[in-house]
Amino acid sequence: MSTHRMSLPETAEPEAIEHWATGGSDELLWLDGEEAHHAVRVKRLAEGDTVELLDGRGLICLATIGGLDKLAKSQGGGWRVGVSLVEARRHEPLRPSVEICAAVPKGDRFETMVSMVSQVGAASLRALETKRTVSEPRAGKLDRVKRVAAESAKQCGRAWTMNIAGPLPFAKAIQPPDNPAHASPQSAKVVLADASGGTYEPTGAEALRVLIGPEGGWTQRELDLAVEAGVGIARFGAHIMRIETAAVVACSAVLAAEHAHQLKEHSA
Amino acid sequence: MSTHRMSLPETAEPEAIEHWATGGSDELLWLDGEEAHHAVRVKRLAEGDTVELLDGRGLICLATIGGLDKLAKSQGGGWRVGVSLVEARRHEPLRPSVEICAAVPKGDRFETMVSMVSQVGAASLRALETKRTVSEPRAGKLDRVKRVAAESAKQCGRAWTMNIAGPLPFAKAIQPPDNPAHASPQSAKVVLADASGGTYEPTGAEALRVLIGPEGGWTQRELDLAVEAGVGIARFGAHIMRIETAAVVACSAVLAAEHAHQLKEHSA
Repeated sequence: MSTHRMSLPETAEPEAIEHWATGGSDELLWLDGEEAHHAVRVKRLAEGDTVELLDGRGLICLATIGGLDKLAKSQGGGWRVGVSLVEARRHEPLRPSVEICAAVPKGDRFETMVSMVSQVGAASLRALETKRTVSEPRAGKLDRVKRVAAESAKQCGRAWTMNIAGPLPFAKAIQPPDNPAHASPQSAKVVLADASGGTYEPTGAEALRVLIGPEGGWTQRELDLAVEAGVGIARFGAHIMRIETAAVVACSAVLAAEHAHQLKEHSA
Repeated sequence: MSTHRMSLPETAEPEAIEHWATGGSDELLWLDGEEAHHAVRVKRLAEGDTVELLDGRGLICLATIGGLDKLAKSQGGGWRVGVSLVEARRHEPLRPSVEICAAVPKGDRFETMVSMVSQVGAASLRALETKRTVSEPRAGKLDRVKRVAAESAKQCGRAWTMNIAGPLPFAKAIQPPDNPAHASPQSAKVVLADASGGTYEPTGAEALRVLIGPEGGWTQRELDLAVEAGVGIARFGAHIMRIETAAVVACSAVLAAEHAHQLKEHSA
């Protein structure tokens, strides 16, 4: 089975992690909270076992468990795990950076979408407000899906946890996304998923926002506004898809097409 | 909103449907059962409303409701809907025909996989028995997912309902699938999804089986057997995906690559 993964930032101080991960300390880094409890009580990890530690912002450390103990009642009484560094690696985020901006499906389907889109490799996901959008996520729901994204990053070994951003109205969503570091204005593009579009053509952009509409579809006015704003329209399948399926399929198709394009550019 | 869709085969006789759909009768075709109840009591459809009728095997009819009535108690007491033909069309299945042969994820995730893979356009889905497969579907579960596939076909407007076939052991799954009509032996291929593979390259095959492994991964022996049998190995994403995500992503990537290949062949 694969190595057990734990989140780094949950309880330890960022400076302490940084110091430890750069080999600045021979001492154990102590992790407590839910993750430590889960590692000891559910996964039954013991001294000498290997773990992978992720900070969700590019750092993945391989470590071994060098100590386990239970905190005094006065300190909360939970388990803590002391880890000894084997190797620390910083990873770049996946390029291009894809933001999925989608109408919010009802109930559990929102969590399913967040988890799946994270596994596929979106940099960010946010709710899109459209004319026909039914469900709007409340603050509590956003907190819940942030936990889903963090859990998913651990499960699929993503070095960067998918960002969950606040809702975006359609009029703003059709403008190119804010440039990430190093991106020129030309390198940010918006694509809208609709059956009226053609096959997705790679753009070479460094940042892409992909708009996924509600199950009632886009209004004609929304489609007109998108075209006016220079948004590309692409079709991602033969059939009508539910929101979460469309989000997963569009995200993977965009990443696959852009990666193939990068390889071609690189070898040319 | 989109036209309400109803399944054709549920209660009417196949011969009666055929006769009616080919314009052989000016009389109304009467549909009863759950679908009729749903149309009348939930969707509140009335005389004159347009409906789309699907038989799940290529036939899609546009029709108008010409009558509604409630059966006598002696005949079951439910609602029935009489439909008048506007237009009947026979559709070909999507080519290539893709069979997803996947380890079965636990609980609700199996239903999620069936629904999503149906929306993406797989011709068929079946359980794959592997060394590390945990969950095996029981007969009752298979019946339930058949209903999910039928419901999904209606929702996404598929002319052909995705087939749910029985489980397949790994040793059989790595042999090319039985040829559909018109396919030569060369035109049936098997692809296995694994992180060790390269980008999926289109094959031009008419029938493709895509193997999706369990979350514990393939064993080395399974990978060796697949390579010996001439199975292609392809990687469908940057991260480790759960079974249902991998199935959806692989199915859409294979269909997209093969369709792009068909277009190129066609224009050459």
